[in-house]
Amino acid sequence: MTRRRSELDPPFTAVRDAVERALREDLEPLGDVTSTLLPPDLTGTARMVARGEGVLAGTACADEAFRQVDGDIRCEWAHGDGATVVPGELIATLTGPMHSILTAERTALNFVSHLSGIATLTRRFVRAAHGNNARIWDTRKTTPGLRALQKAAVRAGGGANHRGNLSEWVLVKDNHLGDMAIGEAIRRARLRWPGRTVQVEADRLSQVQEAIDADADIVLLDNMAPDQVAYCVELRGDRRRPLLEVSGGVTLQTVADYAATGVDLISVGAITNSAPVLDIGLDLAAE
Amino acid sequence: MTRRRSELDPPFTAVRDAVERALREDLEPLGDVTSTLLPPDLTGTARMVARGEGVLAGTACADEAFRQVDGDIRCEWAHGDGATVVPGELIATLTGPMHSILTAERTALNFVSHLSGIATLTRRFVRAAHGNNARIWDTRKTTPGLRALQKAAVRAGGGANHRGNLSEWVLVKDNHLGDMAIGEAIRRARLRWPGRTVQVEADRLSQVQEAIDADADIVLLDNMAPDQVAYCVELRGDRRRPLLEVSGGVTLQTVADYAATGVDLISVGAITNSAPVLDIGLDLAAE
Amino acid sequence: MTRRRSELDPPFTAVRDAVERALREDLEPLGDVTSTLLPPDLTGTARMVARGEGVLAGTACADEAFRQVDGDIRCEWAHGDGATVVPGELIATLTGPMHSILTAERTALNFVSHLSGIATLTRRFVRAAHGNNARIWDTRKTTPGLRALQKAAVRAGGGANHRGNLSEWVLVKDNHLGDMAIGEAIRRARLRWPGRTVQVEADRLSQVQEAIDADADIVLLDNMAPDQVAYCVELRGDRRRPLLEVSGGVTLQTVADYAATGVDLISVGAITNSAPVLDIGLDLAAE
Amino acid sequence: MTRRRSELDPPFTAVRDAVERALREDLEPLGDVTSTLLPPDLTGTARMVARGEGVLAGTACADEAFRQVDGDIRCEWAHGDGATVVPGELIATLTGPMHSILTAERTALNFVSHLSGIATLTRRFVRAAHGNNARIWDTRKTTPGLRALQKAAVRAGGGANHRGNLSEWVLVKDNHLGDMAIGEAIRRARLRWPGRTVQVEADRLSQVQEAIDADADIVLLDNMAPDQVAYCVELRGDRRRPLLEVSGGVTLQTVADYAATGVDLISVGAITNSAPVLDIGLDLAAE
Amino acid sequence: MTRRRSELDPPFTAVRDAVERALREDLEPLGDVTSTLLPPDLTGTARMVARGEGVLAGTACADEAFRQVDGDIRCEWAHGDGATVVPGELIATLTGPMHSILTAERTALNFVSHLSGIATLTRRFVRAAHGNNARIWDTRKTTPGLRALQKAAVRAGGGANHRGNLSEWVLVKDNHLGDMAIGEAIRRARLRWPGRTVQVEADRLSQVQEAIDADADIVLLDNMAPDQVAYCVELRGDRRRPLLEVSGGVTLQTVADYAATGVDLISVGAITNSAPVLDIGLDLAAE
Amino acid sequence: MTRRRSELDPPFTAVRDAVERALREDLEPLGDVTSTLLPPDLTGTARMVARGEGVLAGTACADEAFRQVDGDIRCEWAHGDGATVVPGELIATLTGPMHSILTAERTALNFVSHLSGIATLTRRFVRAAHGNNARIWDTRKTTPGLRALQKAAVRAGGGANHRGNLSEWVLVKDNHLGDMAIGEAIRRARLRWPGRTVQVEADRLSQVQEAIDADADIVLLDNMAPDQVAYCVELRGDRRRPLLEVSGGVTLQTVADYAATGVDLISVGAITNSAPVLDIGLDLAAE
Repeated sequence: MTRRRSELDPPFTAVRDAVERALREDLEPLGDVTSTLLPPDLTGTARMVARGEGVLAGTACADEAFRQVDGDIRCEWAHGDGATVVPGELIATLTGPMHSILTAERTALNFVSHLSGIATLTRRFVRAAHGNNARIWDTRKTTPGLRALQKAAVRAGGGANHRGNLSEWVLVKDNHLGDMAIGEAIRRARLRWPGRTVQVEADRLSQVQEAIDADADIVLLDNMAPDQVAYCVELRGDRRRPLLEVSGGVTLQTVADYAATGVDLISVGAITNSAPVLDIGLDLAAE
Repeated sequence: MTRRRSELDPPFTAVRDAVERALREDLEPLGDVTSTLLPPDLTGTARMVARGEGVLAGTACADEAFRQVDGDIRCEWAHGDGATVVPGELIATLTGPMHSILTAERTALNFVSHLSGIATLTRRFVRAAHGNNARIWDTRKTTPGLRALQKAAVRAGGGANHRGNLSEWVLVKDNHLGDMAIGEAIRRARLRWPGRTVQVEADRLSQVQEAIDADADIVLLDNMAPDQVAYCVELRGDRRRPLLEVSGGVTLQTVADYAATGVDLISVGAITNSAPVLDIGLDLAAE
Repeated sequence: MTRRRSELDPPFTAVRDAVERALREDLEPLGDVTSTLLPPDLTGTARMVARGEGVLAGTACADEAFRQVDGDIRCEWAHGDGATVVPGELIATLTGPMHSILTAERTALNFVSHLSGIATLTRRFVRAAHGNNARIWDTRKTTPGLRALQKAAVRAGGGANHRGNLSEWVLVKDNHLGDMAIGEAIRRARLRWPGRTVQVEADRLSQVQEAIDADADIVLLDNMAPDQVAYCVELRGDRRRPLLEVSGGVTLQTVADYAATGVDLISVGAITNSAPVLDIGLDLAAE
Repeated sequence: MTRRRSELDPPFTAVRDAVERALREDLEPLGDVTSTLLPPDLTGTARMVARGEGVLAGTACADEAFRQVDGDIRCEWAHGDGATVVPGELIATLTGPMHSILTAERTALNFVSHLSGIATLTRRFVRAAHGNNARIWDTRKTTPGLRALQKAAVRAGGGANHRGNLSEWVLVKDNHLGDMAIGEAIRRARLRWPGRTVQVEADRLSQVQEAIDADADIVLLDNMAPDQVAYCVELRGDRRRPLLEVSGGVTLQTVADYAATGVDLISVGAITNSAPVLDIGLDLAAE
Repeated sequence: MTRRRSELDPPFTAVRDAVERALREDLEPLGDVTSTLLPPDLTGTARMVARGEGVLAGTACADEAFRQVDGDIRCEWAHGDGATVVPGELIATLTGPMHSILTAERTALNFVSHLSGIATLTRRFVRAAHGNNARIWDTRKTTPGLRALQKAAVRAGGGANHRGNLSEWVLVKDNHLGDMAIGEAIRRARLRWPGRTVQVEADRLSQVQEAIDADADIVLLDNMAPDQVAYCVELRGDRRRPLLEVSGGVTLQTVADYAATGVDLISVGAITNSAPVLDIGLDLAAE
Repeated sequence: MTRRRSELDPPFTAVRDAVERALREDLEPLGDVTSTLLPPDLTGTARMVARGEGVLAGTACADEAFRQVDGDIRCEWAHGDGATVVPGELIATLTGPMHSILTAERTALNFVSHLSGIATLTRRFVRAAHGNNARIWDTRKTTPGLRALQKAAVRAGGGANHRGNLSEWVLVKDNHLGDMAIGEAIRRARLRWPGRTVQVEADRLSQVQEAIDADADIVLLDNMAPDQVAYCVELRGDRRRPLLEVSGGVTLQTVADYAATGVDLISVGAITNSAPVLDIGLDLAAE
């Protein structure tokens, strides 16, 4: 099936630009010197196949890579972002000029395996937190230049997106406070940036109380143990706000304990900056 | 010490462009909304400190990030790319306007922790292969758009760089051969691309012999067991060429066995596409 | 005084890029053909002077324009963004090579007069709403490619910034609802985008009630008369949320009536897409 | 009717680049977070409708915006640049995926309403000068980065284009003269830049005479009253050259008086830097 | 002497962008692999020396190349654009880190030798036409992407610049005319593009007369023999206009004959698209 | 025949980017002012015809230029890169909107005539060296920003490509050696950059011997006379390596003598930096 836009896709501008850059860096100045050995007329079929188990992401980028390299390559997608794949599972079938498929192969695979790696690790955290309300979300700890793509991959894995960048919402940390009280900081933030999410980082329980009293939208509980987190959840009681976020060193081993506290959000830097790739390969055959 | 160019640095053009992109994606459209809460005159000092043990890389990018954000930030580097750091070790000291340091913080750290992660994993492979001649080198399995930076990080970790891209040298794989014999492919490659490295992928021992006979520069031994590799090393005998490269699924557990075969090069995709970050943080203090 | 970063500035990346583009479009391919008639050594002084009354914005762009054209131009700024200026008032003094000042003149003035026009109109709306809590804020009705600069100019005029773009927060309009109830849309939005501002457009009072019940962060009251708005304010009562925003056709004549209703926010597309420039000129003298 | 190239269009390179930039600034990093609430299969139809009276411009940009966002959106244009529209008049019909139409809506409208605003104000000046030979033309007082688009909009409004930038022709102002006589400046300009239009700014009648004698191509009559302008027209007599241009503070109220003097050209900065948008909206309906 | 801006320089935006592109294409992805063999501290001095005789151009580009590669390279220029140099003549002295000088060397030389080649060939045509009023000017037959730099080099060689691009002035050729008379075409062009140079191509004498009668600014005499050109000069008589331009196949052998006809302008495509480089080298010495 | 990808093409990314830049520089800000005089509906046919004899190159660029300007232009190619053409020979037929063909004409021709000029001069060198094994190859002496296109043109002319840039392989020159012996330099280069071509420049016979002994991949014989080169060939004997390259001042007159020595490669800077264009024109006819 020809690929259709999905609500899990990154913005198409980011896809187009990232693919352009990736192809430039792989092809210039001389082009694919090896595929010049092939007969130019040779056509072929390639099957993109999962070699590991995981969650697919980045199909928009792979599709764009094949499309940019050669409009004569036809891509049929068996699965889209967010699908679970197992080893040997067919992801897509590419048909067209053999040399063009070979030229695009690594770039397409680099996108899809990197982003599927993020989706897969995200899904593992999501599963580990299962049975609770806690959502896994990402951070600004992303690979430079690829944030839009990585944040989309987190969504494909079932995670959510923390603020997209420094511009999106206010997150007051210790270093922003200086001598200011938390309540005063929130007041100033709401004055300067009305309507925008205002989040506060809290290291101590007293700060959490201050933030609750000052009507923060989210409180980031920094490096607290699960029982401290549970206490903060109690502090908030049955108010709708603030959302409570756990942050700092959460692992696949500890995430369930945190999720069990009733906390709303658990941020994990590792899902974007330390996810190994999902192994995905291309099986080619000349026609 | 003000940072000096190092022979381990990526090309400065790639550093400049990647930092520009990373800062755009973190700042636009509204800028760092939180740091507008700070007094504009507040200056501070930040200590970039290792929180994990590993090998430093990407200092050129971090330096450039601070420099682009604010020319008034002074960066003193205690270590450069390739240095081994331990938890708590000071990497750099930043002095200047507090809000500018905070604005640049995450971008600078994203570069240095991602690239140091690559250098660190590379070093682990290098160490695991120790006592032999085998060099660890990278692949084209890099994060799209960051190849120049990642390949420099591999060098910082003591690894070497396989071909930079499809343009740099010829690597004949099965799909390029079709009905052509390996010797014929090499002959054509040398005719079309004289002077350029010509490498051949070999799945079977007979292919290795063919490649040796045809004077390939490098033979990639694809997914062979260590004893098969050892046999190929013997096949080559005391000739200077071809270099023999092991490729496919080499892990920290198996790398020593491969290195012991006398092979020249071991390529590891994981060092660029699956390295977790090295944890590096910034400790700030207002002045 | 040499210009210093201000918390009212646009992100420097947007300033740098916009100035590069503006200078390219004014200079290529042949450069400033007229200023080649000047003796290359002639230096001069230029006084940037307000010819109308208004609020200054865009000084970062003007400063950058002079700096990019010639590092030998010295800019001394008498005022920064947000300052009120009257006809004849000195804004900045430029000293340096006469031909470079002439080359940069129009580009620098185009930025500062356009952006000051926005700040000035914003201030007029802010003043007209004076004595109430209502904040004036902008919309996405900005001039294409200049959003970051225009939104900063709104802040310089005392206004606030609505969402920066489609990515920043959720704004559910009629067309997004289809058959969905408002409460259901908010629930879905919070599930998919936790922590992010969720705003709902309401045309009818029943929708306002729905949005209040469903805990929207902001309700956009679309094209309502002041008495309807006042009724909505009452509906909300003394809850902290949702913020209530008036939108649609608010003018300098009607803004006070809306502000008097107790509404929190009044959005005005005109401040970014229909503000006339503030007249600012350059008085030059050779030395 | 599918849109066809028109001789009133801006260069397509400027259209493509401006639309790319505008979509990036509206969509990154997370995309259109709201339209993810829509069923991905929902298709719809949107009618672009004038809400004010004016002259259309920028249809190439709007068309390009829809096209870039989604190749499946079909645009049927009822009118092209230069057409007069009245409130309620259909401009274009868009059919395709609902979420894509919603994503592109504001960007497309920002272009077409901004540029139509320029065309509309231009037309008002053109009409006010009617019955005379005087042409209305623009200046370099354009919005930075949008000159190509704005100058095309001036043409759509029936105006003409002054020099496109500093590179296009020579315009000698007081500051370029220093001690040089006007005749000498023109002589030097023709020597250095043969074939290129040479224009001279004149504040005083004596300068006008000098410029006529020296065979300037155009004389810019700076801030003169209509009777002074009429005198200059007489000075020129029935020579074909120089063209005489009135510049400085011409308004809709005064333009007829200037036009009546027999002057050739009247430049108005306001048409590009102070034109309010033409109100144009999109009426959507799901199918 | 540190380099100063010259009125012969290309626009600095074009210089900066072209140098960025050239360095990217020479350095990425791995950087200058050879200069990593040098001790990083080694400093050196390089003398840029002419090896052929000619006219210098492109010094702004070479200066920018060294500056971008390493801010620690000091460039002292003995000559600027437009200077005549003889074999062995010192052009500039570079001092700084040896590896940086080596890295920048080829890019800097490629700019200066290519552009000096253009200036040199231009000067030869200028000299060959000497003793007459005829100016040598260029065409749009430039190397794609380098027009701004090449047109500046033509000025450095003593030539003038024809229109910078399709946007700058009107040049009516046979294919634009169809059934239209030349006079009608000029009338339309002046109506649509007032103030802008209007040039007409003429193949036949009757067309020249038409163009003169219709007050063209320039008439391009296409592929005429010198005696025909002389006749056209006579046709024009002592009118100031139109300027008469000879175009088509003018060589160093024939240019004097054309210049002797009294024609105003002689266009030569070869000066920009077929000029051999001026041989310029770098003599390096470690310190 | 619609154009098909050829193994002689430059990387499509370089083609796309170069054409975008070239069209921007020719069209902005006002577009093709002359072709606005044409009836917008006029269609026509253009025949791209060789006016000189030579070898075609750059057809991918010309095709892309027409395609970018107007998707309605149909290009039928009679010949592709590498074909020999004689004066009058049809190269391609363009059919479509007349004004679009005229707008694209010069840009398309600039690419194809410049690159065919390179291919043609390359072919002349190749022919002059005929009957020997010596290959003609290029250098890094290319026109800045166009290396990828020019190197492809060299291949179209029958030449080969020396290293693409500083990143591709190691070339040790005198200045890199300092006090280091050639053998030591090669050893270090192989250590740092395994698998990569290592080339050494040799001015003297003793250096050639050193380089042979140290197993260099290529030895560049710098400015040697043919008999010295012949001696070096003998020195190498029947070893497969190193390849021997002649470099420095080889002309069409001397190339045969060098080729007769048995040398492998002859590098000629002139083929990329001093090739005159191949004269190619467009014959247009309205339909």
